[in-house]
Amino acid sequence: MKRLAVALPLLISAAAFADEGMWTFNNFPSDKVKAKYGFSPTPEWLDHVRLSSVRIAGGCSASVVSPDGLVMTNHHCSHECIEQLSTKKKDFIKDGFFAKATKDEVKCPDMEINQLVEISDVTKRVQDATKSTPVEKFNDVQKAELAAIEKECANGDDTLRCDVVTLYRGGRFDLYKYKRYQDVRLVFAPELAIAFFGGDPDNFNFPRYDLDVSFVRIYGKDGNPAKFDHYLKWSATGAKDGDLSFVSGNPGGTSRLLTQAQLEYDRDVKLPTALYRLSEWRGFLNQFARRSPEAERTSKKDLFYIENSLKAYKGRHAALADQKFFASRIAAEKDFRAKVEKDAKLKKDFGGAWDGIAGAMDKLRTYRKEYELERGPQAETFTWARQLVRWADESGKPNGERLKEYGESRLPQLKQGLFAKAPIYDEYETAKLAFSLDKLREELGADHPVVKKVYGNKSPLQLATELVKGTKLKDDKFRRELFEGGKAKIDASKDPLLVFARSFDPEARAARKRIEDEVDGAVKKNGELLAKAYFAVFGQGTYPDATFTLRLSYGKLAGWKEGDREIPALTNFAGAYDRHTGAEPFALPKTWLDAKTKVAAETPFDMVTTNDIIGGNSGSPVVNKEGEVIGLVFDGNLPSLGGDYGFDETSNRCVAVHSSALVEALDKVYGAKRIVEELKSGSAASGPKAGGK
Amino acid sequence: MKRLAVALPLLISAAAFADEGMWTFNNFPSDKVKAKYGFSPTPEWLDHVRLSSVRIAGGCSASVVSPDGLVMTNHHCSHECIEQLSTKKKDFIKDGFFAKATKDEVKCPDMEINQLVEISDVTKRVQDATKSTPVEKFNDVQKAELAAIEKECANGDDTLRCDVVTLYRGGRFDLYKYKRYQDVRLVFAPELAIAFFGGDPDNFNFPRYDLDVSFVRIYGKDGNPAKFDHYLKWSATGAKDGDLSFVSGNPGGTSRLLTQAQLEYDRDVKLPTALYRLSEWRGFLNQFARRSPEAERTSKKDLFYIENSLKAYKGRHAALADQKFFASRIAAEKDFRAKVEKDAKLKKDFGGAWDGIAGAMDKLRTYRKEYELERGPQAETFTWARQLVRWADESGKPNGERLKEYGESRLPQLKQGLFAKAPIYDEYETAKLAFSLDKLREELGADHPVVKKVYGNKSPLQLATELVKGTKLKDDKFRRELFEGGKAKIDASKDPLLVFARSFDPEARAARKRIEDEVDGAVKKNGELLAKAYFAVFGQGTYPDATFTLRLSYGKLAGWKEGDREIPALTNFAGAYDRHTGAEPFALPKTWLDAKTKVAAETPFDMVTTNDIIGGNSGSPVVNKEGEVIGLVFDGNLPSLGGDYGFDETSNRCVAVHSSALVEALDKVYGAKRIVEELKSGSAASGPKAGGK
Repeated sequence: MKRLAVALPLLISAAAFADEGMWTFNNFPSDKVKAKYGFSPTPEWLDHVRLSSVRIAGGCSASVVSPDGLVMTNHHCSHECIEQLSTKKKDFIKDGFFAKATKDEVKCPDMEINQLVEISDVTKRVQDATKSTPVEKFNDVQKAELAAIEKECANGDDTLRCDVVTLYRGGRFDLYKYKRYQDVRLVFAPELAIAFFGGDPDNFNFPRYDLDVSFVRIYGKDGNPAKFDHYLKWSATGAKDGDLSFVSGNPGGTSRLLTQAQLEYDRDVKLPTALYRLSEWRGFLNQFARRSPEAERTSKKDLFYIENSLKAYKGRHAALADQKFFASRIAAEKDFRAKVEKDAKLKKDFGGAWDGIAGAMDKLRTYRKEYELERGPQAETFTWARQLVRWADESGKPNGERLKEYGESRLPQLKQGLFAKAPIYDEYETAKLAFSLDKLREELGADHPVVKKVYGNKSPLQLATELVKGTKLKDDKFRRELFEGGKAKIDASKDPLLVFARSFDPEARAARKRIEDEVDGAVKKNGELLAKAYFAVFGQGTYPDATFTLRLSYGKLAGWKEGDREIPALTNFAGAYDRHTGAEPFALPKTWLDAKTKVAAETPFDMVTTNDIIGGNSGSPVVNKEGEVIGLVFDGNLPSLGGDYGFDETSNRCVAVHSSALVEALDKVYGAKRIVEELKSGSAASGPKAGGK
Repeated sequence: MKRLAVALPLLISAAAFADEGMWTFNNFPSDKVKAKYGFSPTPEWLDHVRLSSVRIAGGCSASVVSPDGLVMTNHHCSHECIEQLSTKKKDFIKDGFFAKATKDEVKCPDMEINQLVEISDVTKRVQDATKSTPVEKFNDVQKAELAAIEKECANGDDTLRCDVVTLYRGGRFDLYKYKRYQDVRLVFAPELAIAFFGGDPDNFNFPRYDLDVSFVRIYGKDGNPAKFDHYLKWSATGAKDGDLSFVSGNPGGTSRLLTQAQLEYDRDVKLPTALYRLSEWRGFLNQFARRSPEAERTSKKDLFYIENSLKAYKGRHAALADQKFFASRIAAEKDFRAKVEKDAKLKKDFGGAWDGIAGAMDKLRTYRKEYELERGPQAETFTWARQLVRWADESGKPNGERLKEYGESRLPQLKQGLFAKAPIYDEYETAKLAFSLDKLREELGADHPVVKKVYGNKSPLQLATELVKGTKLKDDKFRRELFEGGKAKIDASKDPLLVFARSFDPEARAARKRIEDEVDGAVKKNGELLAKAYFAVFGQGTYPDATFTLRLSYGKLAGWKEGDREIPALTNFAGAYDRHTGAEPFALPKTWLDAKTKVAAETPFDMVTTNDIIGGNSGSPVVNKEGEVIGLVFDGNLPSLGGDYGFDETSNRCVAVHSSALVEALDKVYGAKRIVEELKSGSAASGPKAGGK
């Protein structure tokens, strides 16, 4: 893997010339794009692309690709839905899924889609609210203000979702208003074997041959497909090497503005500990899956996510372990700090911010283990139990004082998760809970008072077995009853998992409160100071760290050089057949082997672009200057894994499925002509005029 | 876990007052002990303790405790032997083992014991040999000289083992001559449930209640118990809080002399990558064991070692992740470097050493992944295959040009491993090999030429299954035949595992050679320069980093403070019964439950001392000033895990079984009276007079 060896471009003037940046739609540098690529997106173009882009609340991006609410995203973004719809008898992960007609489309138990309809600036209101707030109250006061703004915005309307987004680590606060869709149905998914051809070994690699796509459809409250004025048309020809490309999606998060103390925490504590846990869980799952085909089926989704995270986190850690890169970050901070300290006013107002954050990181190192109580065991049934236990208490509090995730504006999402008709498999749920309980004891130590109180004389496996066996929370109707019965009903329940979650809730809340007050408060307060200092020194012509909100990046189709090796920008179908060995994960599914003579071997398959993206961008459309779909983002290359901390245009690449591969496969491999027609007719139908000037 | 927050004591004068140091027997600071504890070990005392201390070649320490070759070590040091002697029908790990009479003692298939009989200084000869050697030849030239010295020393005598030991990273070279014993028989082992009571959760913790002991006996070539003039007598009373304690054993390795570049490599690359691998393997084993009781039995030993290493490595990583500690190491290096640079002669001779090592570390970062080929799959059968393949080639080379482990003086150990009657269980061996092959592919990438060549169209599991099923190397007679048949016979064999090992041996050797020439050579050459500079600046009154050779440390029984909590120096039998929950790993075995009324509840169980120890010291005797056994080292406490990089007397503790616990349990729980008598009669019998002045 190549490493980032350049100074953080964001902080040096050369940034103007790189395809760097996950730009907000309301601060998009059309002039930069014009200067480099001769095309300047108009406000109408930006509005059209924004309104055609949607977000999957669970953590992905997507786009509307027909007026009838057809949505394109990755297979791995629908993996959970596909698995939840599968049964012991019918495994759609293995065999794929295709609804031959609209009536065959099946509701995903737990998928919510959001469409960003409005952005407004609430910076002054938020910053004024905390103006004279001491650091240890900062988090609470800010949280209350945000909750108030969000509540006013949604105003009790369940079809809206309102989030105040913290940009530039507190330098700006924007209110994002979304339309919320909770009836989303599965239309098409290929077999995992081709969606994820090459498996973990090829993940983040390129050249690549993955058809990582799925289609879902948004339905309205009336039970019919929802209508959309804005949707992306399909490019008739697709793109070729060198073509301009835009990616519109929701990058999950970046850390390009972190201070040295925060980077050291990531490098030395956060990433290693996350990687130990993920690695162990990966080994566990690999063997768990070998118990039986059913064990494999029910745990496969988690294994996929775990391996994906592992590789991504390893890349991030490697970026920070790179001495040159780390030194460049320290140098950039030193330079920034020197500029602030040179100016008496800036120094007085902002000079203490770095030490304030460093102090918070010291505390985090100390408080981290106890926070495992708040993180809690990672198992669906426990999550539900805790949500119910907490809802009993939070529902009685004023909106501003609630834990954030129980605020008025968050309730629709909370309820969707809690009421989801998601199947629970006892064997796997028990294994998962036991593993988590074992790790919890490991972090806290066998002599920790909570461990003694909660585990008693039981081993983690004994406890998990009892809890999963005894709980009725696996039944969605029971969960709904409890939730709707409110505090009285929940408090009265003796369900063993509720009893368990209740038994250490005060300690979990205390561990969280301590970090929110002493760590988060300091990071937020001082982050705001740093942002103001940054604007004062460098101006506002830059992009904020990613926040899983809609961003637009620009770039072009381009390969890169890996040592002496030239990596091309595109692969084709022939390459996929060449890479087929017959052994997983390099075994093409039967449909593909059967279709070998039917597909055009030279059809482009996957492609790489210079767009600056990161996890969360999965499922983003790649569009050309006409705003037409030319690809579907599903990955980054290995060098891009350090992209959390910095962008290097020479080697960071976005990996996408080429638009031609999608229609060729839908048509020739799967005979999914109705989707192909819908994509193409969408292109023919009238929609708001796209295109720039 | 508490962290080391003091400057490296080794490099500051206060070291004189701390119980720090793993001292060589030929440079033991008797004067320091006298000053602090009023007792000065005489040369006779030191000789007696040294000759009564033995080393288990596989990686542990031990002591001779009777004139008839009875050897005391940890249960976990004999774990492999106990497991190898077990069968599906009789599980000695679970049930324990006791040979009622001498004739019932059973040979451990693969245990070698070494007794250090002589140390001589060969520094001049070694350093002269490389005096004008360029850095890229340094490793080869030095290796040849060491091989020559070792060969001359053993002179073809298989009962001797000679190792040149590099001390002070090349400042001194001592030739260690050992008597080698390869007939070692199991005498006694308790159940794992008490040897490792509290399991991984309590590992490295204190208070503790483990009877981590086993007894083996050394047999001579005549098949009778070997006779020993030197052996440790048993203390009649044992030790109490505050008593002086010595630990004589073989600490495996420390890194207290590493430069900043090396520490950064450990922190950012070596430890994290080792931890990812171990974590994944741990998760894998935990689930593998659940396949069947047989799967659990055959994999349990590895799980134990993995979990132990994991916790130890996490502790080491945490020490380096501690910002204060790391800063103290950088400051110490800066100070040392400044002293060297202030003196023109020192600067000219040694000033470039730090950069030389930093350059080597840069290369190591680049070469590391390819070295996985040399590391090779971690499975017994592969190890044997590679040894045979290499022996075919190495046996024809002059001694000095061979790979180190095939040198004349190493052959007895090589043969013992290769000819061991160690059982191989296909199911587990296949799983292990498949896991390793998967990781190898992961590190190198699916497109690496060796992966393409070696794996072909097979998945790691398919390949491992074929190899384990097809190989005859599982049969020790077959391995012996091949070895004794030499190159012709080995080269002619079409055994699939030999073919496999052969198929990438050139690439593996090349990966190793590159690191030996470009990294090891530079580290050794520059390490020698740093050592000379260190002696010039600070003098020679210090101890070298641990090298898995015999060392003596001094200290006393003492608890410590953890935050506000006082941790006592001793636990007792009553505490073990209190900690029993009935659920693994806190379930006492039946023998102990049955003996509850027979044992004295106030008998001391485990204890902590201030002795400076580290992994490899497991099995070391703790002795009093009379040279009598007062304990058996089996662990360090959590704060001691950073001991690889520095020692902090306020909290680093050595954890041992109290001598009284051993005899009380042997007598009352196990009815092993013949061992108790042998231990006590040893004390009564005449031996060379011990004791100091």
